[in-house]
Amino acid sequence: MHYEEVALYEGREDVRLSSYILDDSVEMLNGGKKGAVLVCPGGAYLYCSDREGEPVAMAFAAMGYHAFVLRYSVYNENKGINTFDHILPDLSETWADKPDGVFPGPVRDVGKAMFYIKEHAEEWHVDMEKVALCGFSAGAHNSAMYSVYYNRPIVTDFLGVGAEGIRPAAVILGYTVSDYSAAMTKEAMEAPLSRAMNHALTGKDEIIDEEYAKKLSPCRLVNEGTPPMFIWATAKDQLVNPEQSMRMALALNEHKIPYELHIFEEGQHGMVLGTYATAAQEEHLDTNIERWIHMADKWLQKRMAPEFAGEYKGF
Amino acid sequence: MHYEEVALYEGREDVRLSSYILDDSVEMLNGGKKGAVLVCPGGAYLYCSDREGEPVAMAFAAMGYHAFVLRYSVYNENKGINTFDHILPDLSETWADKPDGVFPGPVRDVGKAMFYIKEHAEEWHVDMEKVALCGFSAGAHNSAMYSVYYNRPIVTDFLGVGAEGIRPAAVILGYTVSDYSAAMTKEAMEAPLSRAMNHALTGKDEIIDEEYAKKLSPCRLVNEGTPPMFIWATAKDQLVNPEQSMRMALALNEHKIPYELHIFEEGQHGMVLGTYATAAQEEHLDTNIERWIHMADKWLQKRMAPEFAGEYKGF
Repeated sequence: MHYEEVALYEGREDVRLSSYILDDSVEMLNGGKKGAVLVCPGGAYLYCSDREGEPVAMAFAAMGYHAFVLRYSVYNENKGINTFDHILPDLSETWADKPDGVFPGPVRDVGKAMFYIKEHAEEWHVDMEKVALCGFSAGAHNSAMYSVYYNRPIVTDFLGVGAEGIRPAAVILGYTVSDYSAAMTKEAMEAPLSRAMNHALTGKDEIIDEEYAKKLSPCRLVNEGTPPMFIWATAKDQLVNPEQSMRMALALNEHKIPYELHIFEEGQHGMVLGTYATAAQEEHLDTNIERWIHMADKWLQKRMAPEFAGEYKGF
Repeated sequence: MHYEEVALYEGREDVRLSSYILDDSVEMLNGGKKGAVLVCPGGAYLYCSDREGEPVAMAFAAMGYHAFVLRYSVYNENKGINTFDHILPDLSETWADKPDGVFPGPVRDVGKAMFYIKEHAEEWHVDMEKVALCGFSAGAHNSAMYSVYYNRPIVTDFLGVGAEGIRPAAVILGYTVSDYSAAMTKEAMEAPLSRAMNHALTGKDEIIDEEYAKKLSPCRLVNEGTPPMFIWATAKDQLVNPEQSMRMALALNEHKIPYELHIFEEGQHGMVLGTYATAAQEEHLDTNIERWIHMADKWLQKRMAPEFAGEYKGF
């Protein structure tokens, strides 16, 4: 394995890409290239959760994909935490401005990561036609945002590249936000976490207007270039309403873009893999939910299965 | 992740341990320690197969265990190959002597690796009570050998340590050899590969005597310290008869040591995970066989499930 963690922008330490590059070997795929999965952890745009980073990368590496974890622009220090307490700002005071962090910062970070992978594709034996995105919560929102913005000037002009080289082959969304104004209602904005997330993503403390909210709502921006999606959530999620997942699926359905939708009956927000690999507490274990990653594996294979190189000469 | 590859003996480059150390985070297990799995690839004691190394480590890392791959003493250069052709020696010539490589070299290497992990347990947050071994083919034989020798002077005197700190909590054997004389019959020894393997492990070109063969037959050496085992093989294995797996299970059964045995109907020798992650060719894919790693996951959890540290203070 080649493992590295790099800062994606000169002069900034917060946006970082961790790369888990599987060994190339004549034994595997008879020497063929591997696909890859870029993981975007959640954390309400306030931080990037460790639970939704490396352990998920390991799950994709176990499938035979190179794996990447992107720590994109967020409001606080970009490291794991075990409580929101110390990152929830006192909203009676004015927040500091963080212009790099607000929209379109985070979605551009995904493009920056895709471009970095593209630049190293030859060296790392990555098949760029088979790079998927996988996000959770705010990271799912950011992944969905990228899925509708990667082919628009907001990303392509910023990177100075065409959309074809940075298109995800598939996108996996766990307990996503997809309709911003439906998520950030007046009622929701009374919760400190929602207000903090809104500030982190928009730089504003008030409810944003409909026109701007649409720009943050990937379910309203699906276009012919939007990639196939595997969407999952839990019906009992108290933090992000699972209707947010259904709104995304409805939009894909309308645009005839391939998708799967799985809403599990049990489970709180942030179940990740539902296994010990991602559990902070017992409540994060669930033998039903833990099946989604294997369902996603089979779904990915439909479009990401590697090709065996040349004629097999082994034993 | 902390990734490193180190040589375990001064002055020798061939015995190497690759360590995949998962990030420690307050978010995971509420800060608790993780177990680990040490993987021994197969390759007839002639080489160590890449297919049975890193991809298997990734499968255990995805479960939340730290993972290690041991390249133990083998006859040839210790790297992946895609054909046996150039490593099968011309047996009409006398082989070079490789005294470090022959028994008990390889089984001591496993002890050396366990001791190395133990030395770093604090730093890497490894729970030494929960370190499993997982081997394939010759690597399964070596793992089974360690399971019956780790508590005998051949290993403990060599390392200068007691057995308690280097005992595996569980052992997983894929298409193993367990009864050496049953495997190395006069008929079998007519095959160049068997003769080569016999030379690599014993340093001899002829059929070895019964007394020595017993020393290489873990199924005949099971003792009260032998750990629980998960054993699997394929009924159609043409290289190692699946009776070798059953002989090991019979011995454990007799000694009342916990075990599971799964013999799948289809599949050649060397199926590893049965997925794209370990396939060199189409014939290495099998949707039935790919279930064993998930069965092994649940089986490991009975004795390796991590503990959640302290009181949960997260959100």
